[in-house]
Amino acid sequence: MKLNIALLAGDGIGPEVIDQAVKVCDAVAKKFNHDLNWQPALTGAAAIDAVGEPYPDETHEICVNADAVLFGAIGHPRFDNDPSAKVRPEQGLLKMRQKLGLFANVRPTFTFPSLIDKSPLKRERIEGTDLLILRELTGGVYFGERGRKDDGNTAFDTMTYTRAEIQRLAKKGFEIAMTRSKRLCCVDKANVLESSRLWRETVQAMEKDYPEVEVSYEFVDAVAMRLVQWPSDYDVMITANLFGDILTDEASVISGSMGLMPSSSIGEKARLYEPIHGSYPQAAGKDIANPLATVLSAAMLFEDFGLTEEAKEIRRVVNKSLAEGIVTEDLADGAKAYKTSEVGDWLAASI
Amino acid sequence: MKLNIALLAGDGIGPEVIDQAVKVCDAVAKKFNHDLNWQPALTGAAAIDAVGEPYPDETHEICVNADAVLFGAIGHPRFDNDPSAKVRPEQGLLKMRQKLGLFANVRPTFTFPSLIDKSPLKRERIEGTDLLILRELTGGVYFGERGRKDDGNTAFDTMTYTRAEIQRLAKKGFEIAMTRSKRLCCVDKANVLESSRLWRETVQAMEKDYPEVEVSYEFVDAVAMRLVQWPSDYDVMITANLFGDILTDEASVISGSMGLMPSSSIGEKARLYEPIHGSYPQAAGKDIANPLATVLSAAMLFEDFGLTEEAKEIRRVVNKSLAEGIVTEDLADGAKAYKTSEVGDWLAASI
Ligand SMILES: CC(C)[C@H](C(=O)O)[C@@H](O)C(=O)O
Ligand SMILES: CC(C)[C@H](C(=O)O)[C@@H](O)C(=O)O
Repeated sequence: MKLNIALLAGDGIGPEVIDQAVKVCDAVAKKFNHDLNWQPALTGAAAIDAVGEPYPDETHEICVNADAVLFGAIGHPRFDNDPSAKVRPEQGLLKMRQKLGLFANVRPTFTFPSLIDKSPLKRERIEGTDLLILRELTGGVYFGERGRKDDGNTAFDTMTYTRAEIQRLAKKGFEIAMTRSKRLCCVDKANVLESSRLWRETVQAMEKDYPEVEVSYEFVDAVAMRLVQWPSDYDVMITANLFGDILTDEASVISGSMGLMPSSSIGEKARLYEPIHGSYPQAAGKDIANPLATVLSAAMLFEDFGLTEEAKEIRRVVNKSLAEGIVTEDLADGAKAYKTSEVGDWLAASI
Repeated sequence: MKLNIALLAGDGIGPEVIDQAVKVCDAVAKKFNHDLNWQPALTGAAAIDAVGEPYPDETHEICVNADAVLFGAIGHPRFDNDPSAKVRPEQGLLKMRQKLGLFANVRPTFTFPSLIDKSPLKRERIEGTDLLILRELTGGVYFGERGRKDDGNTAFDTMTYTRAEIQRLAKKGFEIAMTRSKRLCCVDKANVLESSRLWRETVQAMEKDYPEVEVSYEFVDAVAMRLVQWPSDYDVMITANLFGDILTDEASVISGSMGLMPSSSIGEKARLYEPIHGSYPQAAGKDIANPLATVLSAAMLFEDFGLTEEAKEIRRVVNKSLAEGIVTEDLADGAKAYKTSEVGDWLAASI
């Protein structure tokens, strides 16, 4: 297969972890006879510095014409304590999601047997956890009207959802649930919000089209609690943009190593793959960041193109590196810590 | 001291746990020579059944004229899967908060040495945790304009904050921080929401009035993560209504027993005290619910009226009951479980 992949390394540790994923993908392509065509493009603070824009038109052109996007991370501390900065890296992220129509963010959370004791949660609470949060990514309060009134003394944001937006996301949720344990949980705040009531009503109406899927409805506050109490109770969850932002980050704690959690964001046509850790500026340039989340994101990419064996091969070498202790300092636990680039080289060589 | 206390038992286990708190308060009043005048009033599903309204005017009259309100819980499963029900118990809660002007919800989270192993989190992560979330309770998306458009196919909710609302809440936060470790964390989503940018700007402007308080600003998604990773990193946190709803519930998991966590909600004049657990309908009427959260809420009540010794006495007997195993089944751990009423009797007798 020939795949054109846009390569958006972004900020902080982004470039370093992306480099390792590219090595691993190239090794897989060689082994399985695929042709990967990497197309680097600017994004984030790096793009602001170069062209004054966090998601430049040229980058969008490249992404829109690619088969998939591999994304590192964006964000830079110099923007963090200046919420009123006119141009911010995050705007690039939001613009990219919207312009590429990436309406569904897929965030699996699972445990690695060898890392289970790294979790802040007790082993018996998390063993067997394998859940997936499907976060709506191009609607809700992220993209509603917002502004100021009364000479700047009143601020407002609007949380809006249309039935069609909810159906589109929920359909993906039902479909994914059908490939897993056939349980779907709709997470909302329908006891307060009208938009949540529309979510609940829309999902309820879709239940008849998926008679095998068992659907439950829970309030976001209760889920924030239960998710760390009994994470293995959950399977597929669907939720609005803001709730998903909070819950996916909360869920990332379960596995014990955020440095390993991959994600994908999908649209009608576009597909983007990224590690869930951020740009982690403190570690940037030091060759110490864990590249596995990005490597596992690349596995999701292969899988989405039906290249299951290729995805399996990536996961196999990742597990092997964990078992043999070829890991970065976050996982080294006193033993020898390998550099980001060393882990990447080792993985590529093992394929 | 003479105190008129409105008694809103509410639904589910509300009446049972409230009864025990009353016993304990009466014992304290007797010992310290106070005069407590209890004024029962209807609320929640119980009020809907009786008068068709979850927060009737007569109840409001009683609350407004009382020195404090002791509240049980509201909510009934018969309303849960019918988000479009015209009258819902939760509306009573929201109406009460608004009409009494209870703008600040105070939610301490701490650990009990004897219960620390009940937490889903590992002991070394939670030891020493003693944090307090101050949730804005009468503004934000809970009380903004909401509705439908396009023949019901679009739903919207408005998240609004004024500078004055934020100042009022933040002032309480700074004041509480001054009585504790002088650290305050403002939790928002200022990288996306205009209302969060107003929060951040407002709190930043107040920093100069409290030069001793060290203020930090964190995004809600990062906090949802760090709160279960390193809860003891936090001290006082201030946040908007919706974020507070989610984070306070998440934080309640830390202690290992939600049945013990108290709360207060305060306004310019009104003060309300309630356990954070809900109405827990499955346990209603069985005399098995843990009354300690309500009893500890009553301790907060005494404390807020300057009756520190009285509050201490309540906490002393609560700790004694835990140490001696005079506990309900949620804490019994295979040993003898006492009834709700037995625990209440034991506490009152120990005072
Ligand atoms: C950076 C920020 C705008 C973004 C979001 O809130 O969506 C991030 O938290 C994420 O989850 O990808
Ligand atoms: C019942 C519900 C409306 C309420 C809220 O969201 O405020 C509850 O979750 C709470 O936190 O007291």
